[in-house]
Amino acid sequence: MKLLRVGTAGAERPALLDAEGVLRDLSGLVSDIDGALLADEAALGRIRDAAGAGELPVLDAAGLRIGAPLGRIGKIVCIGLNYHDHARETGAEPPAEPVIFFKAADTVVGPHDTVLVPRGSRKTDWEVELAVVIGRTARYLESAQDGLAHVAGYAVAHDVSEREFQIERGGTWDKGKNCETFNPLGPWLVTADEVPDPQQLSLRLWVNGELKQDGTTAEQIFSVGEVVRYVSQFMTLYPGDVINTGTPAGVALGQPEPKPYLRAGDVVELEIEGLGRQRQEFKDA
Amino acid sequence: MKLLRVGTAGAERPALLDAEGVLRDLSGLVSDIDGALLADEAALGRIRDAAGAGELPVLDAAGLRIGAPLGRIGKIVCIGLNYHDHARETGAEPPAEPVIFFKAADTVVGPHDTVLVPRGSRKTDWEVELAVVIGRTARYLESAQDGLAHVAGYAVAHDVSEREFQIERGGTWDKGKNCETFNPLGPWLVTADEVPDPQQLSLRLWVNGELKQDGTTAEQIFSVGEVVRYVSQFMTLYPGDVINTGTPAGVALGQPEPKPYLRAGDVVELEIEGLGRQRQEFKDA
Repeated sequence: MKLLRVGTAGAERPALLDAEGVLRDLSGLVSDIDGALLADEAALGRIRDAAGAGELPVLDAAGLRIGAPLGRIGKIVCIGLNYHDHARETGAEPPAEPVIFFKAADTVVGPHDTVLVPRGSRKTDWEVELAVVIGRTARYLESAQDGLAHVAGYAVAHDVSEREFQIERGGTWDKGKNCETFNPLGPWLVTADEVPDPQQLSLRLWVNGELKQDGTTAEQIFSVGEVVRYVSQFMTLYPGDVINTGTPAGVALGQPEPKPYLRAGDVVELEIEGLGRQRQEFKDA
Repeated sequence: MKLLRVGTAGAERPALLDAEGVLRDLSGLVSDIDGALLADEAALGRIRDAAGAGELPVLDAAGLRIGAPLGRIGKIVCIGLNYHDHARETGAEPPAEPVIFFKAADTVVGPHDTVLVPRGSRKTDWEVELAVVIGRTARYLESAQDGLAHVAGYAVAHDVSEREFQIERGGTWDKGKNCETFNPLGPWLVTADEVPDPQQLSLRLWVNGELKQDGTTAEQIFSVGEVVRYVSQFMTLYPGDVINTGTPAGVALGQPEPKPYLRAGDVVELEIEGLGRQRQEFKDA
């Protein structure tokens, strides 16, 4: 299923994009698309049954804002340098084990919302990423296969990054990853049953119409299942937590000087095979 | 005011410890102690008035668990190496600007709850810290004075840390800071009007009755107000966000070998002047 949330920011209603591409209202069945729903097999079954029976009311999509497809997000765990080609372009050795950093849930915006270039920023960069949404509590998992079994679904994430804040201002990467609006998510949360192999997805990102990233999750150093298993050794993952699984090559940081960092007026578009497409206009904070 | 939350984990009710040390029920006035309440001057005024008039029902404290004094926590921003004496003991240069890392809100437990030593841990360490709770949205603040004006209150935080995960396993410090139960908070949230100078608070921590940390916030490299101002340049702080402002000298990491890291059975007690006292027993995860 393609689950989503539509309406004004902070007041989104749950919805479903059906097999014919028609937007359907879920607010009569569930209050929100969140961790509680994703952990509730029975509620998910009721949505699936109602959709199959054609019982869900049609929503008029015209002019309707699409929000992030997940409400009440717990934490967002991010994996750094998780693509062979991206590690090469940044001059870093492929990590021996996953690099972990964090984004705050309050950085999440809808897939077509405005993204703000922070005040004082000179190095705002793009990163298309496969976001993994957790559906079952994951704690000290023993195998990558078990890791994958704890995934409720997938979405497109834009891990917007300020490289000077991230790398040149002391401390951890978190300083350049948590500016407001820095995590567009969506348009849809695609349930895991519709993504048979998360290691065979193409990811693409354009800046002002020019293709910048053109990768595949086959290049991931640590697979989705292995990432979930690994992270669960260091922290407990709960339903409604998100893992941004890293970005392929092609970010501004990896280009020759002068690096083409983002500025107000730039438009970034990104998509992952089967998970939909985002488009953001950048403005000054 | 001393605000707190009492009852079983996940079902705490709001309460107040009055000037005579009597526990009073706030559940007739407010639904929770959270960011929404802290941003609501009128609601805080109603609590103050009812407390002053002696109108709040007495709660029987006997056998009542004390939870963390803040619900629906947004993000927890942590400041690393923020005490001159702690920077010295770890062999680090005092940072030129604040070091930022994150703890997830799901690591928060009550001040007397059990803390779990992670599986595979050999270097679980203690850190008493002054926690700052944000009461107003803080974005690109211009002065430390303005930073302080965005603080709703203060609490004791235990920033439990696994040093091998934090330092020796690649990536950022977040890996050793986010194990389950790693952020005991409370017992109270003391409103800012009752903490006239947050740079003159003594902090102490004992392990199995032996004094290990005995510091003062006067040793902070970056003051509370400056930390809030600084963080607000990189991310927006919202009511209900927490900043752990760093730890003074005396952690296990700073001791000679063999360093006395924590194990199941150890008991840690910690307190900050005017903000109350915590006690945790450590068990294996």
